[in-house]
Amino acid sequence: MAFSPLVDQLLETLRVLPGVGPKTAQRMALHLLERDRDGGRRLVASLGEALEQVGYCQRCRTLTETPLCTICEDARRDEGLLCVVESPADMLAIEQAGGYRGHYFVLHGHLSPLDGIGPEDIGLDQLDERLANGAIEELILATNPTVEGEATAHYIAEQLRGTGVRLSRLAYGVPMGGELEYVDGGTLSRAFNGRLPFAQESS
Amino acid sequence: MAFSPLVDQLLETLRVLPGVGPKTAQRMALHLLERDRDGGRRLVASLGEALEQVGYCQRCRTLTETPLCTICEDARRDEGLLCVVESPADMLAIEQAGGYRGHYFVLHGHLSPLDGIGPEDIGLDQLDERLANGAIEELILATNPTVEGEATAHYIAEQLRGTGVRLSRLAYGVPMGGELEYVDGGTLSRAFNGRLPFAQESS
Ligand SMILES: [Zn+2]
Ligand SMILES: [Zn+2]
Repeated sequence: MAFSPLVDQLLETLRVLPGVGPKTAQRMALHLLERDRDGGRRLVASLGEALEQVGYCQRCRTLTETPLCTICEDARRDEGLLCVVESPADMLAIEQAGGYRGHYFVLHGHLSPLDGIGPEDIGLDQLDERLANGAIEELILATNPTVEGEATAHYIAEQLRGTGVRLSRLAYGVPMGGELEYVDGGTLSRAFNGRLPFAQESS
Repeated sequence: MAFSPLVDQLLETLRVLPGVGPKTAQRMALHLLERDRDGGRRLVASLGEALEQVGYCQRCRTLTETPLCTICEDARRDEGLLCVVESPADMLAIEQAGGYRGHYFVLHGHLSPLDGIGPEDIGLDQLDERLANGAIEELILATNPTVEGEATAHYIAEQLRGTGVRLSRLAYGVPMGGELEYVDGGTLSRAFNGRLPFAQESS
């Protein structure tokens, strides 16, 4: 035992937070107990409320406490465009980048046969239903540019072959504002293969 | 708004934790909501319980949910030795280093006239009472080796002048296992001034 039983238990449970080891847990616990009990109480209330009430949007599967999320409810968004992402964080990153005005579908992961994660575990049956109603014209496969994300995108593309839904994938290339010498080789080679005539690079 | 109101509120309240910025808060919230709701519920319960029940030991002022902490209750510890520290974390570090078998007194800070933190705010009236009952033979001033910690140690020493209580301060010097070239100048000069004859360096 280090402190009292309740403090020790708090040091242990704080480690459910990603990236929090023993030293950080101690700093957090002492900060809340010694300097910010009101903040701690707000965290208890807010986390408790979110854990009980936040579920998944019935239409796009993102996190929300209402049956439909604000994006799915937004009548001004383009019903013909659907962007498939692995996580709500990816969806948020695309929203914050701005420019996209279609809808989303969140997989909450990617296909991973070795871990027993198959098509239904990432909601592909629900995605099929959504596509079957016919309003979607283009499906943007925005899974991560990783082996698993690529495999998932290919699986979805294969399922949709011949349905008439246009499929697209985010462009690969060197990230804006980066320096070429720090870009990894795989990305650089993709960027070379996908090179555009100079005048069209921003078209 | 980024996610739903409850998720946004959680992203905001997670930032009461020290060192947690917007990106880390988002990673924590999504981790708990998407992958570890049980862990999140354990955190809510444990933090709530600690915030309501953990107070201060009546004798040494460390954090505990009982009137006296386990160290103050431990009859095998030396009643003649009292070590004054700035925080429960310092007390824990000394306990984990091992070897010390006396008692503690936790200031929860240091004197800081500019911030309006005077002797009573760091419990020095309670320390005086403790010393007045006469059992303490040696007071070890283990405040931090910072300007404020030094000033606090000197203030306490001044108050006790002529009471017959032996005063000591942790030894200054180069940290074990460090390399001299990385030790700061102030520490190095203290280590030179406090140098010992070779045969006694471990006495
Ligand atoms: Zn939705
Ligand atoms: Zn105590």
